Amino acid sequence: PYPPSAAVVRAIQEASQHKLTRYPDPQGTVFRRRAGEVLGVDPDGILCGNGSDDILTIVTRALVGAGQVMRTPYPSYILYRTLAQLQGAICEEVSFESDWSLPPRFAAATESLRLVVLPNPNSPSGTLVPPDVILRMAEQLPCPLLVDEAYVDFAETSCLSLVARCERLMVSRSFSKSYALAGLRFGFLVAQPDLVTQFEKVKDSYNCDALAIAGATAAIDDQDWLQSTQTRLRRTREESAVALRQLGFSVQPSQANFLWCTRTDRPLKPVYEQLKSAQILVRYMQYPQWGDGLRVSIGTDAQMDALLTVLRRIL
Amino acid sequence: PYPPSAAVVRAIQEASQHKLTRYPDPQGTVFRRRAGEVLGVDPDGILCGNGSDDILTIVTRALVGAGQVMRTPYPSYILYRTLAQLQGAICEEVSFESDWSLPPRFAAATESLRLVVLPNPNSPSGTLVPPDVILRMAEQLPCPLLVDEAYVDFAETSCLSLVARCERLMVSRSFSKSYALAGLRFGFLVAQPDLVTQFEKVKDSYNCDALAIAGATAAIDDQDWLQSTQTRLRRTREESAVALRQLGFSVQPSQANFLWCTRTDRPLKPVYEQLKSAQILVRYMQYPQWGDGLRVSIGTDAQMDALLTVLRRIL
Repeated sequence: PYPPSAAVVRAIQEASQHKLTRYPDPQGTVFRRRAGEVLGVDPDGILCGNGSDDILTIVTRALVGAGQVMRTPYPSYILYRTLAQLQGAICEEVSFESDWSLPPRFAAATESLRLVVLPNPNSPSGTLVPPDVILRMAEQLPCPLLVDEAYVDFAETSCLSLVARCERLMVSRSFSKSYALAGLRFGFLVAQPDLVTQFEKVKDSYNCDALAIAGATAAIDDQDWLQSTQTRLRRTREESAVALRQLGFSVQPSQANFLWCTRTDRPLKPVYEQLKSAQILVRYMQYPQWGDGLRVSIGTDAQMDALLTVLRRIL
Repeated sequence: PYPPSAAVVRAIQEASQHKLTRYPDPQGTVFRRRAGEVLGVDPDGILCGNGSDDILTIVTRALVGAGQVMRTPYPSYILYRTLAQLQGAICEEVSFESDWSLPPRFAAATESLRLVVLPNPNSPSGTLVPPDVILRMAEQLPCPLLVDEAYVDFAETSCLSLVARCERLMVSRSFSKSYALAGLRFGFLVAQPDLVTQFEKVKDSYNCDALAIAGATAAIDDQDWLQSTQTRLRRTREESAVALRQLGFSVQPSQANFLWCTRTDRPLKPVYEQLKSAQILVRYMQYPQWGDGLRVSIGTDAQMDALLTVLRRIL
């Protein structure tokens, strides 16, 4: 809900004056170096992407062929299934337990399995599988495990430091959520350098433009901005969770920038529609064999107050 | 060699102030509308891409599966072969005739053929296959024919108006050459609207960022800039061709922003190397079963004079 760091806008405006005529650096070296320092990872283990969707596409194309299997949890990000379908591959969806933990089957070594993708924190639940559990799964699996950390900047832990310890564990990150740069299209992968070298063969040569590289570098350089935004957003999230529970919702404790709200005493689709007609947009999600709910993104305090006011009227 | 239109820089700077926080328009509607007006094509038949390399990737993924065939001329843009390989497909390369025309075999209906790609003007030759010849080939082929018009703004004709007449004929365009926006990553496809709807299923949801959409829209809106740059560049191209011929090169008449220079009286690799050590970068290309040459991009008049001065010293 907050605008990005002013340093990002300045970097883009500066780059727009002298970086447009030539092709961008195919590797985004300046970003990799700065991100490596800030995150404490090997710059050669960073792959820049045109949004983390591009990273997911690159990894899927590199690893999963026609007739092979990609595994994801269910319910989670619906793009994974589409990416498998584009490859003519099979997407095996393993249901979360009712407490949003993963069953042992999620880490089972089965035939033709080529890639496992785990969003962590997950959407729509906002829940997090602990890094030590993920490391054990990666060690058990016969193929790479991509941990999609699009929402991790709102969480308390991450799998980033595990990448160097386990070749099969990879982490993807997005600038669309915590850095407020959805319009810029920038994401990245952290994996062991040998793997990144292979993934580079699959990506478009110039997948990230010069403005995105400049903007993302300025963004990751401004960790003060990130921390202050994180703090504000987490406080709003916790206050909103309390208020929504008081209104009768079952609200999953969240490590992301949204709250997963369910209730059994009344249907949720009409609540979503009444909110929409009051110009408040939340996401109504209906998962077959699982149930429905409202995924409420965290806005400013004023935006959340507006939501609660309308809900008090409706309910 | 010239900086882009000032309107592009202004549009990007403006967009950087209020377009970063939200996801970009997945279709790039504002660009499609303006481009449709400027080029006289149906906006619904335009697909925006993260550079025309992204367009080539989307079209290849949509049309060419493992074991199927994609056809390209030889010598031409080397990316086509890579894209086929990424799909596990076969890239069938049909050699140009010695006058850079295409043999009848290029339009033959053969088994498993799913896509034909023709760069027009071609690289490295700078030559152009006439649009009426291309239309006849498209009508003969059993599959789509993508005419890669990355360099067409430096030519005298184009296939754009043929797309509405023949479903199998598609045209891709780049903003990296004639619009001087290689750093921005923007290209587009023109095809019949039904096809564009299908290609949209294959692309990343947000493949073009908000800054690229704003910049490309401003660029295509400034046709005065394009025309004056075209005029300057073509004049420099013709003058350079004359001067290079006087130096003993065989120079192919060019419809692009480069000249293909060959000679048989001495090896060209040392010429390339001597130019490089004088900080003049031209492209040395060696094509097996075809021969080698220098592809000389057209720079400013001062840059071309510098090239000629060094060549007169070397030769």
